[in-house]
Amino acid sequence: MIIDIHAHFTAPAELWAYKSNLLASRGHSGGRLKLSDDKIVDALNKPVHGGNSHLQQLKEVGIDKQIISPRPYQLMHSEKPESIVRKFTEACNDLTAKQCKLFPDTFIGMACLPQNMGVSPKNCVEELERCVKDLGMVGCLLNPDPNEGMGPPPPGLGDEYWYPLYEKMVQLDVPALIHSAGCREGRESYSLHFILEESIAIMSLLSSKVFKTFPNLKVVISHGGGAIPYQIGRFRAGSVKGDSPLFEDRLRQLYFDTALYTQDALETLFKWATPPRCMFGTERPGSGTAKDPKTGKWIDDTQPLIEAISWLTAEDKAGIFGGTARKVFNLKN
Amino acid sequence: MIIDIHAHFTAPAELWAYKSNLLASRGHSGGRLKLSDDKIVDALNKPVHGGNSHLQQLKEVGIDKQIISPRPYQLMHSEKPESIVRKFTEACNDLTAKQCKLFPDTFIGMACLPQNMGVSPKNCVEELERCVKDLGMVGCLLNPDPNEGMGPPPPGLGDEYWYPLYEKMVQLDVPALIHSAGCREGRESYSLHFILEESIAIMSLLSSKVFKTFPNLKVVISHGGGAIPYQIGRFRAGSVKGDSPLFEDRLRQLYFDTALYTQDALETLFKWATPPRCMFGTERPGSGTAKDPKTGKWIDDTQPLIEAISWLTAEDKAGIFGGTARKVFNLKN
Amino acid sequence: MIIDIHAHFTAPAELWAYKSNLLASRGHSGGRLKLSDDKIVDALNKPVHGGNSHLQQLKEVGIDKQIISPRPYQLMHSEKPESIVRKFTEACNDLTAKQCKLFPDTFIGMACLPQNMGVSPKNCVEELERCVKDLGMVGCLLNPDPNEGMGPPPPGLGDEYWYPLYEKMVQLDVPALIHSAGCREGRESYSLHFILEESIAIMSLLSSKVFKTFPNLKVVISHGGGAIPYQIGRFRAGSVKGDSPLFEDRLRQLYFDTALYTQDALETLFKWATPPRCMFGTERPGSGTAKDPKTGKWIDDTQPLIEAISWLTAEDKAGIFGGTARKVFNLKN
Amino acid sequence: MIIDIHAHFTAPAELWAYKSNLLASRGHSGGRLKLSDDKIVDALNKPVHGGNSHLQQLKEVGIDKQIISPRPYQLMHSEKPESIVRKFTEACNDLTAKQCKLFPDTFIGMACLPQNMGVSPKNCVEELERCVKDLGMVGCLLNPDPNEGMGPPPPGLGDEYWYPLYEKMVQLDVPALIHSAGCREGRESYSLHFILEESIAIMSLLSSKVFKTFPNLKVVISHGGGAIPYQIGRFRAGSVKGDSPLFEDRLRQLYFDTALYTQDALETLFKWATPPRCMFGTERPGSGTAKDPKTGKWIDDTQPLIEAISWLTAEDKAGIFGGTARKVFNLKN
Amino acid sequence: MIIDIHAHFTAPAELWAYKSNLLASRGHSGGRLKLSDDKIVDALNKPVHGGNSHLQQLKEVGIDKQIISPRPYQLMHSEKPESIVRKFTEACNDLTAKQCKLFPDTFIGMACLPQNMGVSPKNCVEELERCVKDLGMVGCLLNPDPNEGMGPPPPGLGDEYWYPLYEKMVQLDVPALIHSAGCREGRESYSLHFILEESIAIMSLLSSKVFKTFPNLKVVISHGGGAIPYQIGRFRAGSVKGDSPLFEDRLRQLYFDTALYTQDALETLFKWATPPRCMFGTERPGSGTAKDPKTGKWIDDTQPLIEAISWLTAEDKAGIFGGTARKVFNLKN
Amino acid sequence: MIIDIHAHFTAPAELWAYKSNLLASRGHSGGRLKLSDDKIVDALNKPVHGGNSHLQQLKEVGIDKQIISPRPYQLMHSEKPESIVRKFTEACNDLTAKQCKLFPDTFIGMACLPQNMGVSPKNCVEELERCVKDLGMVGCLLNPDPNEGMGPPPPGLGDEYWYPLYEKMVQLDVPALIHSAGCREGRESYSLHFILEESIAIMSLLSSKVFKTFPNLKVVISHGGGAIPYQIGRFRAGSVKGDSPLFEDRLRQLYFDTALYTQDALETLFKWATPPRCMFGTERPGSGTAKDPKTGKWIDDTQPLIEAISWLTAEDKAGIFGGTARKVFNLKN
Repeated sequence: MIIDIHAHFTAPAELWAYKSNLLASRGHSGGRLKLSDDKIVDALNKPVHGGNSHLQQLKEVGIDKQIISPRPYQLMHSEKPESIVRKFTEACNDLTAKQCKLFPDTFIGMACLPQNMGVSPKNCVEELERCVKDLGMVGCLLNPDPNEGMGPPPPGLGDEYWYPLYEKMVQLDVPALIHSAGCREGRESYSLHFILEESIAIMSLLSSKVFKTFPNLKVVISHGGGAIPYQIGRFRAGSVKGDSPLFEDRLRQLYFDTALYTQDALETLFKWATPPRCMFGTERPGSGTAKDPKTGKWIDDTQPLIEAISWLTAEDKAGIFGGTARKVFNLKN
Repeated sequence: MIIDIHAHFTAPAELWAYKSNLLASRGHSGGRLKLSDDKIVDALNKPVHGGNSHLQQLKEVGIDKQIISPRPYQLMHSEKPESIVRKFTEACNDLTAKQCKLFPDTFIGMACLPQNMGVSPKNCVEELERCVKDLGMVGCLLNPDPNEGMGPPPPGLGDEYWYPLYEKMVQLDVPALIHSAGCREGRESYSLHFILEESIAIMSLLSSKVFKTFPNLKVVISHGGGAIPYQIGRFRAGSVKGDSPLFEDRLRQLYFDTALYTQDALETLFKWATPPRCMFGTERPGSGTAKDPKTGKWIDDTQPLIEAISWLTAEDKAGIFGGTARKVFNLKN
Repeated sequence: MIIDIHAHFTAPAELWAYKSNLLASRGHSGGRLKLSDDKIVDALNKPVHGGNSHLQQLKEVGIDKQIISPRPYQLMHSEKPESIVRKFTEACNDLTAKQCKLFPDTFIGMACLPQNMGVSPKNCVEELERCVKDLGMVGCLLNPDPNEGMGPPPPGLGDEYWYPLYEKMVQLDVPALIHSAGCREGRESYSLHFILEESIAIMSLLSSKVFKTFPNLKVVISHGGGAIPYQIGRFRAGSVKGDSPLFEDRLRQLYFDTALYTQDALETLFKWATPPRCMFGTERPGSGTAKDPKTGKWIDDTQPLIEAISWLTAEDKAGIFGGTARKVFNLKN
Repeated sequence: MIIDIHAHFTAPAELWAYKSNLLASRGHSGGRLKLSDDKIVDALNKPVHGGNSHLQQLKEVGIDKQIISPRPYQLMHSEKPESIVRKFTEACNDLTAKQCKLFPDTFIGMACLPQNMGVSPKNCVEELERCVKDLGMVGCLLNPDPNEGMGPPPPGLGDEYWYPLYEKMVQLDVPALIHSAGCREGRESYSLHFILEESIAIMSLLSSKVFKTFPNLKVVISHGGGAIPYQIGRFRAGSVKGDSPLFEDRLRQLYFDTALYTQDALETLFKWATPPRCMFGTERPGSGTAKDPKTGKWIDDTQPLIEAISWLTAEDKAGIFGGTARKVFNLKN
Repeated sequence: MIIDIHAHFTAPAELWAYKSNLLASRGHSGGRLKLSDDKIVDALNKPVHGGNSHLQQLKEVGIDKQIISPRPYQLMHSEKPESIVRKFTEACNDLTAKQCKLFPDTFIGMACLPQNMGVSPKNCVEELERCVKDLGMVGCLLNPDPNEGMGPPPPGLGDEYWYPLYEKMVQLDVPALIHSAGCREGRESYSLHFILEESIAIMSLLSSKVFKTFPNLKVVISHGGGAIPYQIGRFRAGSVKGDSPLFEDRLRQLYFDTALYTQDALETLFKWATPPRCMFGTERPGSGTAKDPKTGKWIDDTQPLIEAISWLTAEDKAGIFGGTARKVFNLKN
Repeated sequence: MIIDIHAHFTAPAELWAYKSNLLASRGHSGGRLKLSDDKIVDALNKPVHGGNSHLQQLKEVGIDKQIISPRPYQLMHSEKPESIVRKFTEACNDLTAKQCKLFPDTFIGMACLPQNMGVSPKNCVEELERCVKDLGMVGCLLNPDPNEGMGPPPPGLGDEYWYPLYEKMVQLDVPALIHSAGCREGRESYSLHFILEESIAIMSLLSSKVFKTFPNLKVVISHGGGAIPYQIGRFRAGSVKGDSPLFEDRLRQLYFDTALYTQDALETLFKWATPPRCMFGTERPGSGTAKDPKTGKWIDDTQPLIEAISWLTAEDKAGIFGGTARKVFNLKN
């Protein structure tokens, strides 16, 4: 059974109309969103992202289960007042939970959090608890830059600023998938911002005391770790010069998804992070859902690429395609 | 003959004392710096960066020629008033020129520019001209973020904001090596900032009209292109969906140096950028000057790594190790 | 024939999904929106605002024709970069035009403008021209506070800052309906902000040289003029003390709509503005679409209230219910 | 006996010279102001505001008693350092108290408070206590915008931010008259700012828990409630749609003065606020002290306008002209 | 005949009431101030500053003529909008002119200028011209810090920023008396700010090209030159090390008044500035109007102190007490 | 024996290279600086400041002992993050201590403190304790403006803000020498800023309760007290008018050094501060190290100037040249 740990829900247009109204009224209107099951099912059965429907796309590439969360670039963590974000976060988590309930064999829920620019992550603890305890979710998105590119940003993930959330994660035994939201800094698209923030997150965590303080904390870095596995040489050299353990050894305190779409990148990731720290992730349907004009294949259909890596053992592959996720996310079936 | 296009000078302590005084007096004192030849020669013959002397280190790894510029993290482009930066820039370029004159068989000069936060790049044209015409330099450093992480940054390199400098570069027929300076944003070290800014630079240039407007412009991205070759899959997919040429085809409008210190990274670079767009670069002595505890070899001794890539042709290698640099930088001997 | 000059379109949810995506991607994605006729017709035939469908609601209260524009509180004029607003403005105007084309006997189009915080109103001239000349619209919304409550605001409407737009309005012979958009200032809801901005707009225009400079300029103040007709006593007293004409005489340089929902307010408006400067407006369906628990009638069904004012002549009423609009907006049929 | 609850003292020029010096020295000079009784009496007997003397003006229109406070537009709550405001506040309250002592049959004192931009209203508690306990005052001015139009403003009056002051008001059993001070926001005159801030104050209070928390709190809105009674239709409709009590029922938790200068406005006020919540107020001498060129009467002589409203009962009028004030302000004689 | 070049008018309280109203209304009210001759004469004949009347105080110390200007600390150059400052400046200059006309044997007028934070000194040219040509004034105050301590300040007086004003001064052949206004920076009183700004002004002028560009420019530094004559040693040493002329030689391009109140300070001034560059100035009545408890004499009665300096020649003294002023200010009688 | 209490160390260039690297890496690199004794001795024996070596310069003018601290203009208190300043401060104090250990008969150490913009002076307590207890230092520099001219500055030295440091000073029984660092405000050089900040410091301390609260606090003002002794007349007059003690009596609560380079300034200082509050200080080698072209003598050789003052007694001079320092700094030999 193939488990894809990095995927986002396909929502009915009414969710976005709700968001649009929340923004326009700056929180002065917008009760709890109610979406009918019909609309939800319908959304999953309509063509999306230039391909077939969400459910069909999973079948096309052999994904059996997906851990889904909202599309991160829509989470607008920098909007004020905070209530806008809070209401939208709840609407998203409600929708995720409903999709999982409607398609229990296919979807598993991952929470988004009501992170907000300038607000302590303490404000996320309650919603995380609701999602895990009441809605049965198995992890959460964590955005290292709720300012969405508007400076000055909060401290890096290695800072004690984030400890209240880490405590709750450890207590609930759920991992976080590091994933920024939008980006208002005009020089970066949100897609590039993802990569840069993941790189910053890794460096911040690895030069901190976080894992000493929280030995059971589980952190998954999206998109194969941003720039770090590729640039690891310069950081290795730095670690040789200093007193700390070798950089690659510290890197393996983290988990990574495989949401990379080229074979050399995947190999680089597996080499430096090692297979036991990697979990299959596709974002499909999403930014990789396009047919490679050179191969005629879906770019985000990466299972064959991984299967083709000769130096991965069967055990490695079993871990990547589901075994590790099963443990990290405490999946039951 | 091996040519290393990415290297920085080793300066006598008096240069830094001069810088320190410029900063402390905020430009109210600090005439032109005068350094004796003795001090300059001496600096190149003292142990540095945890190894032997600069000149010895080149011999150790078989580098015949280096294109040198100041250490970028010292360039302090965000300091005010502008005169601080201008005076230090001139001192640096004077020193580069002197080193090249003292060791004409070993060093070739690359200029740094008096870029300054909030100041148009027009202010760089004159110094670039001095460096090329009077001091015989063959290129320049270009910092996409003279704000050094203090927002809001200037527009990306694809913006017309930068055209006055591009015009002069084309007119003088010299390339720019994209390299940020320091970083005041607390979450990023300057070393990580290099990588992130290179990634932003690539995306900005490739989504712009710069190369249509300046078909003869030559831009070299440091450190193997930041995160982009590793993350190329997601950008390829985006290009398939839109109307623009394939992302990898656009990528090959740029040049790259090989200042990466692992073999898989180097292979990824060569694969996506293609060998004719890559030039050997080491930063040696510098951040990679450390002995790998697993191999016992200098991490920034990457010539053997490149030589070991079986799918590179002899012609590829000849280009990487000097042939391409000779053309791009118009080297005479 | 009853003409309602203040009304807003009812859009399919896809418009808001489009807006939501524009915001999330900060203008890095979002081509021109394409909505099918089916969706548009559908939206006008579904229950809205706690009542029947838009088209049915018009019949219920005897409105024959409506001049429609986008819901102003959704226009997000303070968002950056400007391209977000520009794209959404175009999508809105396209939708208005399509609704008018599909229901030519019922709807007449009023443009919204790509006003943007910190950007001169010059940027609106082109889109206004497109809407009037290409799409057949008869007027435009004008937001005196494109900053949406985030200070410092632009100068008042009496300032020369706004002249480029006034020139184009006069040239095209179309009036502006003064109507603010959202409000980010936490103490005011957008609905209250409308009223306050209308009050400021009146005071600014009446203490300026605008109508001397543009004798043919036509300005309509929404919602019966904010606070001014009610508070006119204090401003009359001020005008008696100074040199300027009596305040009420200056007030009658403006037009007003009747989007007030109580009879005493309507009478106050007619008394001070005089009937020839007033035009019927309801916003129906909209914020007034609720059944008065005391009368059992729709609060925004104000035609009977106006009819009941005994001191209005038949000619007054004919002007209010359409005659004046026909002249001010140059309506043909 | 006619009691006017909204009036301001007429001060000798020396008060303003004192203020001017406080501002010029930024609090580095300026001991406690001492004004002789002669100067105070003199000021009340000189022509002001384009009419006769203050004392004569009262006789002219039959006002028997006035509750006086300083001219609010002079209170400069946004000036820094806070000591400027504190010293001037004390000087004003001292002067008010002296006028009341000199003319005990005519004047009753209302305190101004040392509100200051960015400073918690806690700083007002002590001066309020002094004014009520030591100086015999019966209420206080309360400015909802001590920033005087310079953003960002403090939270609305419904916010807990204001509770320390409300507690003291309830404890001392004195009401507050809501009245803003100056306005530095260039688009609004201070006079218009009064109206807008009163509108915001009403909406903020009515959508809050203030009156649940402080059931004995007494709040009087100046100038007949800003824009709200005129625009009540749109807010009524909103209240019908939501869960809260009807808007007009909530409105009647507040008190209002009648400082409006037109008959239709007065009728609108009485209709929606109901007579028992309204108290006679004129500001005379003040902004309404001008002769209406159409009637030849003083614009701020509104007693005849109220008397002429046929649907007000004798009891209503008795309440408006003094009975209600007597209870609300605990007047003894 | 003793001429005192540094003195300020004594104004009726109505001037300050006018200022207070200008500030409170932020320029929305306040026509041209009209003061009767009686009030003006009266103000000069009432006790002030803890002594006798202004006119009597002059007689007491033997001052025959005074060049008067407004009290600088009241000029509020940092207030916005600019119109506040402009109106008050005009009122002050009108008053100065009236005092001079009423007492032509005693007073000579010096203009104040409508300098305003962030506004080019170009805005002063017209008022300076009015004062000199229409009102017969002989010089002007010049404030080097119209921001009144709120940073960032404008460039120093040596900068081209000030050239438009210097040009007009030269054309009209009138000197400027350098004198700052208020100070909002909490650590400095306005009185200390005077001294600091004078020190900055001297250093800025002497390290600039101003006197090369305007060889006929006449600049008088108030209060004996701030800190500079006392600290001249360190600046002399700096000038010896550099290429520029000796510091004291440059200092003598300026003029100074003698508004210092101790004999050693006066001697230091005369020594370094030399007598021909010094003019008698007292500020009397003003900050020095107090009786020295040790001598029983008025502290600002400095004529005897100067007379007592043995090394000053009779010619020196004649110049200081009037001869130099006569030339510098082009006085006729 | 002549003791010079105001002098700064002469450091090897490596200290400035270390500082330069700290700044460039923004605290991401830079371990503790280690300087060899050879380099330190060498630096003191090389020509500096346009004269002979530091040690020779002392002999030339007969200085027997110097209390040395780092060059204040290099201390960069406004740099962020704070760690930059902390590391550099420690390096400086380590160097001072080493120089004192190497030349125990010549040098006595004065600490610099890790003051930092926006950071409470509490952060200095620990380093002060280290310097006094572990390194044997006898006092500290205190910068009243760690913002280095970038507003808004911290409260004046009279404010309770500074009490934590004063407490520690009293506890350790060490004085502070008031001395600002650099200046980023473009209108002032650091050298002028020293003078202005000393003036502000005096006025702030003398108008505060500091010496009532800390009767044993010892504060020494550099450079003869900035502008104050020269301008004392105006402040004396103010003190006569108010209730406080005479200004000169309050002035004598402070100590002063004699780092003035002209005889009249020295006399003015001795007159107003009185000799028992003055201590010999030269800054030599430093800003005064230049030969007076008129006398051919070193400008900072001020011993002869003081000796020449006839009205100073032998006891006065003994105190100035060492006796007072011995008591104030608790010197043992």
